[in-house]
Amino acid sequence: MAHIAVKEGVPGIRSLFQFRPETGGPLCELAEALLRGPSPLSSAERELIAAYVSHRNECIFCRNSHAAAARCLFGDDNRIVDELLHEHKDLLLSKKMKALLALAGKVQQGGISVHAADIKSARDAGAGDTDIHDTVLIAASFSMFNRYVDGLNVLTPTEESDYLDMGKRMSEKGYQL
Amino acid sequence: MAHIAVKEGVPGIRSLFQFRPETGGPLCELAEALLRGPSPLSSAERELIAAYVSHRNECIFCRNSHAAAARCLFGDDNRIVDELLHEHKDLLLSKKMKALLALAGKVQQGGISVHAADIKSARDAGAGDTDIHDTVLIAASFSMFNRYVDGLNVLTPTEESDYLDMGKRMSEKGYQL
Repeated sequence: MAHIAVKEGVPGIRSLFQFRPETGGPLCELAEALLRGPSPLSSAERELIAAYVSHRNECIFCRNSHAAAARCLFGDDNRIVDELLHEHKDLLLSKKMKALLALAGKVQQGGISVHAADIKSARDAGAGDTDIHDTVLIAASFSMFNRYVDGLNVLTPTEESDYLDMGKRMSEKGYQL
Repeated sequence: MAHIAVKEGVPGIRSLFQFRPETGGPLCELAEALLRGPSPLSSAERELIAAYVSHRNECIFCRNSHAAAARCLFGDDNRIVDELLHEHKDLLLSKKMKALLALAGKVQQGGISVHAADIKSARDAGAGDTDIHDTVLIAASFSMFNRYVDGLNVLTPTEESDYLDMGKRMSEKGYQL
């Protein structure tokens, strides 16, 4: 049961957006701009970073829902998601995405864990300023979303299959309220 | 020097809002709603939570700027900020604020570090659902802002005095872009 009186039966972070629409609005706009707006990274790649950070934070709801969205968006290459979340990182990802995911992992640990060498690795692998910016902000924002969801203990569906529809909707409709 | 090509000489997170206004807009709206919008917690109390989380994350820019804003907003009671940041927590804070700051400290560690007992302590000290919600989201969002600022190594003024004007402006004008 959630730690505060959100509407019963509403899964995940949407129950919190309903509880507090004053902050729910900007949070949805942030997710939409960050994961669906213009970026040199594809939406699939950005969902992958979101799922990876959520996985490292052990946030089941965010990991499963964003992994499901990434699987839809990668389409034929949807094994990428399983390989990443099972730490077999060396098979399908580009050199640039490997470096950006390593950077996201540093941000997940903490802002002061990021060093010039992490940025240099990303640049050497072909990342530009906006790739680096978006990766850092996605990793930082999921450090927020994960804490928000688990800190208030929202309803987390337990079956993988529960996330299939959610991932499809997220991949098609994005995050506008 | 910042890790990406933000405008030189612009201190702190504003350089990132300028670099990427698509995400800067929602981030400012979130801060405004969370720290200045209607809440059972005063803006001074909310700035104190922001400064405390930033202090624990060793984010100098966010800690100093939000501590400066909190000092302005607490007015005559501005010793509260120094006492909290120097870990002398037992003198001036209410029982409710002590419990909410302890909860914020758990959220700073990670969402899964929050247990029912932390929520019960806050409720026993007089906190209601919205106090708890806002505390968790402030702590979660500064877990983001701190990582964003330090992960991209933005310009961080070094003198306490550099933050006086910033704190005054934040306390008077809030966070609208």
